[in-house]
Amino acid sequence: MIATVILNFHAKKDEVRNITGEVQDALQRTGLQSGLVTVFVPGATGAVTTMEFEPGLIEDLKGALQRLAPDDIDYAHNLRWQDGNGHSHIRAALIGPSLGIPFSQGRLILGDWQQIVFLELDARSRQRRLILQIMGE
Amino acid sequence: MIATVILNFHAKKDEVRNITGEVQDALQRTGLQSGLVTVFVPGATGAVTTMEFEPGLIEDLKGALQRLAPDDIDYAHNLRWQDGNGHSHIRAALIGPSLGIPFSQGRLILGDWQQIVFLELDARSRQRRLILQIMGE
Amino acid sequence: MIATVILNFHAKKDEVRNITGEVQDALQRTGLQSGLVTVFVPGATGAVTTMEFEPGLIEDLKGALQRLAPDDIDYAHNLRWQDGNGHSHIRAALIGPSLGIPFSQGRLILGDWQQIVFLELDARSRQRRLILQIMGE
Repeated sequence: MIATVILNFHAKKDEVRNITGEVQDALQRTGLQSGLVTVFVPGATGAVTTMEFEPGLIEDLKGALQRLAPDDIDYAHNLRWQDGNGHSHIRAALIGPSLGIPFSQGRLILGDWQQIVFLELDARSRQRRLILQIMGE
Repeated sequence: MIATVILNFHAKKDEVRNITGEVQDALQRTGLQSGLVTVFVPGATGAVTTMEFEPGLIEDLKGALQRLAPDDIDYAHNLRWQDGNGHSHIRAALIGPSLGIPFSQGRLILGDWQQIVFLELDARSRQRRLILQIMGE
Repeated sequence: MIATVILNFHAKKDEVRNITGEVQDALQRTGLQSGLVTVFVPGATGAVTTMEFEPGLIEDLKGALQRLAPDDIDYAHNLRWQDGNGHSHIRAALIGPSLGIPFSQGRLILGDWQQIVFLELDARSRQRRLILQIMGE
């Protein structure tokens, strides 16, 4: 069985958002017991991954993204389109828009200190829509 | 239902290739309406991700890859095997060979400015084969 | 059909572990012919990817991880929790905990020089548990 669930929310600029509870809730509403949830960002300036969601690591992750694709160097994208979000696109392409998480007995299989996070990487706040594709039995 | 589709193409050195149309076409030929396409690179010097496919960002992504794993530093792989593609392997391992994209009503669920791209990361042009594993109903 | 298989092993600090054989064996025991294996790390200081598993590249990958998230800079996580593994968390979040690999005729579809690897990124040796979610027919 396949269920498609859409999460809608407002993401602040640079927000690291813990979506674990919303994904677990969506899974439970399907009644599926075993399978795979794919969390997907339909957009090129956001990304999904997992992390221990605590303020220190959120700050550290932002530091790492700034080293990976600094926001204060030249981007050809910005020169062409004046969007000012060249770094956002590069960060999103490197981390990726898609994450598969297995579930069993109706529960996501995650570590005790592991949360699913959406990274708002764009240069401004955005209304966001995430796709949860839930496949299982 | 599961359909396995193989995409074959010649990739130029350093090519960033937009494969969105080919993936969508393959999906439509299966007749499946809802599910997940997994795009997979069977090889250790290519990768898949999504991005806004425009010349500025293609240039920016190449710059980021060069910062991430420069092609002009020493690699133990090159010293051992004289392949000259140590940087290719590292870039591919970091970005990853696999991408899951949900579909609904027979269409990939992508952002308006988001394309699926294959990154040819090897130090030479290559004949490439990508696997599309399409699972759905 | 869906089968959940758990891999248990002891991972040494900084280990890059080739798990291809164990994943293939688990797949064969299910008897499934075509589908998708999702390898998932339930934990925030390990990651999965693919690479050519040879000593030169293992050394190169460790060098790249050190450039990506050095272990000798300040992390807010370490200041708060004295764990000393801020770099581990950041590396894991960037590379990711999840990998989808298609299979056909009961075999993983991998390149000839491509292996599935678990990266132990924590600052100490760990008992590890990986989830293989195998979906197919």
